[in-house]
Amino acid sequence: MNWIEAPCAAPSARHRDAALAHQGQLTKPPGSLGRLEQVAVDFAGWQSTAQPVLERIAVRVFAADHGISRQGVSAFPAEVTAQMIANFCRGGAAISVLSRDMGADFAVVNLGTFEPVSDAPGLHNLQLAPGSGDFSSGPALNEALLEACLEAGRSQVDALDCELFIAGDMGIGNTTSAAALCAAQLAWDAQAVTGRGTGIDTATLQHKRQLIDTALARHRARPDNPLRNLRCLGGLEIAAICGAYLRCAQRGIPILVDGFIATAAALVAAAINPGLRPWLLAAHCSDENAHARVLAAMHLRPLLDLGMRLGEGSGAAVAVPLLRSALALHRDMATFVQAEVNAGATPE
Amino acid sequence: MNWIEAPCAAPSARHRDAALAHQGQLTKPPGSLGRLEQVAVDFAGWQSTAQPVLERIAVRVFAADHGISRQGVSAFPAEVTAQMIANFCRGGAAISVLSRDMGADFAVVNLGTFEPVSDAPGLHNLQLAPGSGDFSSGPALNEALLEACLEAGRSQVDALDCELFIAGDMGIGNTTSAAALCAAQLAWDAQAVTGRGTGIDTATLQHKRQLIDTALARHRARPDNPLRNLRCLGGLEIAAICGAYLRCAQRGIPILVDGFIATAAALVAAAINPGLRPWLLAAHCSDENAHARVLAAMHLRPLLDLGMRLGEGSGAAVAVPLLRSALALHRDMATFVQAEVNAGATPE
Repeated sequence: MNWIEAPCAAPSARHRDAALAHQGQLTKPPGSLGRLEQVAVDFAGWQSTAQPVLERIAVRVFAADHGISRQGVSAFPAEVTAQMIANFCRGGAAISVLSRDMGADFAVVNLGTFEPVSDAPGLHNLQLAPGSGDFSSGPALNEALLEACLEAGRSQVDALDCELFIAGDMGIGNTTSAAALCAAQLAWDAQAVTGRGTGIDTATLQHKRQLIDTALARHRARPDNPLRNLRCLGGLEIAAICGAYLRCAQRGIPILVDGFIATAAALVAAAINPGLRPWLLAAHCSDENAHARVLAAMHLRPLLDLGMRLGEGSGAAVAVPLLRSALALHRDMATFVQAEVNAGATPE
Repeated sequence: MNWIEAPCAAPSARHRDAALAHQGQLTKPPGSLGRLEQVAVDFAGWQSTAQPVLERIAVRVFAADHGISRQGVSAFPAEVTAQMIANFCRGGAAISVLSRDMGADFAVVNLGTFEPVSDAPGLHNLQLAPGSGDFSSGPALNEALLEACLEAGRSQVDALDCELFIAGDMGIGNTTSAAALCAAQLAWDAQAVTGRGTGIDTATLQHKRQLIDTALARHRARPDNPLRNLRCLGGLEIAAICGAYLRCAQRGIPILVDGFIATAAALVAAAINPGLRPWLLAAHCSDENAHARVLAAMHLRPLLDLGMRLGEGSGAAVAVPLLRSALALHRDMATFVQAEVNAGATPE
């Protein structure tokens, strides 16, 4: 597993500076495109170019079942994980629709469902284990399985040729695992991280909180051991997303972070290897209770806040056109000189 | 001018209800697409159809000069209005780039600049007056000019065949006019509505506030006389946007409201004819100081908050892909029955 600590790429400061200067020449008041200016500058640094492009986008939905789901923490039964894998591959899920519309390279990676699922077009059916272990009674993963999941994420990214990576997630019970990971990594309690996931009632929410608090104590979770947290509290798909993110940063591929599960994976991955940090762009703030708080703790400012809470990579996919608009403006707007427009007074 | 009070169309409650029910059948937890679900439901009502589409979008940038700009309220000189009209038509401005990318029907309407501008492709060069009057010393418009501007907006919309209308604005000094209109319409003082526009310094901001407070008193602005407010404090392009918005509502064309200027126009237009209200969708919250406050007073929730403050319709244009994503999801996602996915427990 030494590869996870290998150095990450570094965005080009020179190209960021040049892009920032270019933004100041375009026919608009300085700063008036807001976050879109920053996006263009970020892409210039990521691509080491004055004129970044965003054509090739890869979406990988990582799916797995969670032992903790046996404790009744979701509004949906565990078989929905497998059913949704089929729905992703047939094109009927939200992320399928959005990926098609944006012309993304789309595939699903099944790390391991309770019952094996049938092969399907676009499915990498790895089935590394019959789901994770129930972390309320033992570690979710063992060492070998953790390593295999990280490696599965890595090998997905090694096969890509893209300018942006989106990881989606599917796994009934996975907000419970993600919440536990965030609590472990940030030294928070369950109260601070537990939300309603797909829509649980208040009694189930209370039960979910208690399970998380108990697991944090049982596994002696501590911020300074992210790999141990991931092994004890993580899910197969969350570990795979960590591996994918780390490899993206090593290869210099920017990551558009989706919702709560993806953010939990980013939090753990950045603790494993802080070189990940400059490659993260937060797509949206989910309606899942703790997401805003975790993003803030990571100093990530989401682009969108639309009350979404679906996962799958859907929030990231919805944000992609904003990135493309930012780059189109950066590339195609006239400068003050070209358009013979008076550049105005310099604001204080 | 009787036409402005003619009845507006009404969205179809039956098709809204049907769309809402359809959203509940799609393979996702109920409500998990957040605002995107509401957008799909709104479009179903607007188009009186189960499966709304968003292909034909019209963008009209209304431009004019403002007498108040002679008082030094902008970081840019007034000649920039005419220079930007040329830039719009040559495709170099932000709204030109965004309109091209979304395949919109794009045109510019010059209501009146201080100096006449040359004709150009895509320019409706009306030149109804050499700018508006300086409202710090008299009314901005006279009755005939107000009527002509409203009519110009109306006739633009009468010529359209589209599923969504975006009005953009261009006019050095127009945040001063828009701020005065908002204050007049909401019975607020200048402090509550005045922002930095294109980026003025603090001394200029103070001067701008004083001009607005003085004008509010001079013209005895009152919420119950929106037409008088528009005549005394408005600009040519703001009046034209009011006329365009009113005609959209009468024709049943939904309006994607851009930033502060467009919102001020919507506020005045909705006071003239409350039937406008159901046809307004707020695209974004601008960085201009008072915009969030005015949107809240109108009970409009913006989709985006990206720190933009450019006008031109640019914030609305950036939001268009979100609307298209919402409609694609509504149309193309599988239902639980189609995908054979367990619909889960009903949340409390």
